[in-house]
Amino acid sequence: MEESRHQIHRVVKHMEEAWNKSDSAGFARPFVEDADFINIRGAHYNGRSAIEAGHRHLFDTIYKGSENQFTVESIRFVGADVAIAFVRSNLKWYEGGATREGQARPSMLLARSKGDWHIVVLQNTLVAPEGAR
Amino acid sequence: MEESRHQIHRVVKHMEEAWNKSDSAGFARPFVEDADFINIRGAHYNGRSAIEAGHRHLFDTIYKGSENQFTVESIRFVGADVAIAFVRSNLKWYEGGATREGQARPSMLLARSKGDWHIVVLQNTLVAPEGAR
Repeated sequence: MEESRHQIHRVVKHMEEAWNKSDSAGFARPFVEDADFINIRGAHYNGRSAIEAGHRHLFDTIYKGSENQFTVESIRFVGADVAIAFVRSNLKWYEGGATREGQARPSMLLARSKGDWHIVVLQNTLVAPEGAR
Repeated sequence: MEESRHQIHRVVKHMEEAWNKSDSAGFARPFVEDADFINIRGAHYNGRSAIEAGHRHLFDTIYKGSENQFTVESIRFVGADVAIAFVRSNLKWYEGGATREGQARPSMLLARSKGDWHIVVLQNTLVAPEGAR
């Protein structure tokens, strides 16, 4: 279990680093080929190549030069080979000459295959600012 | 697999019916005791009793008399005893004398124990209206 936790932390760290290098292929690499991805706008993407293309677009446009920090809040195992990582993201991006900051919860469902953990589903939800409706 | 799919559809139907009767205890019943729940505002709740209390509050306040329609878009198995149900919700509620309508994606991670499927994690994400940022 400790080795699995360690590997899952490494997957999340890898994604953070890929984001911060605007490396969409690196960001998509830990996903299984036919992964599901639900973004903060509730759009549902299927497949690693769609995830790669979507992030390529983000890194080239609204999130160009953005910085993301991923914190693993907890890991929940559902059997020995399936786990969900509850992750908190803190994103800083640039818009109209100003720095903006937002938080979200990109939870990742991972499965172990041949000793390696891969992301099967990622669902993201924006964390509403305090006091906002 | 067909029997599992059938059971999972029944769980989702049960939740829809419980919502539409403002029955918070019924809504919470399919969750495991220590379930995780991330709502559309990105708040993370732990445990069936917190889920029940949160929905009691919703049904008594902003979502009083609301109507929810849950549609299972797909079910993805991760091994034989773990599945994720991709669900679309369409909620109608009343606010300031008007009817409002919103869509969301309450994805449910379920596990089978002693033949029965229970929800281990539910994460919800609002579907952004077309054209909205």
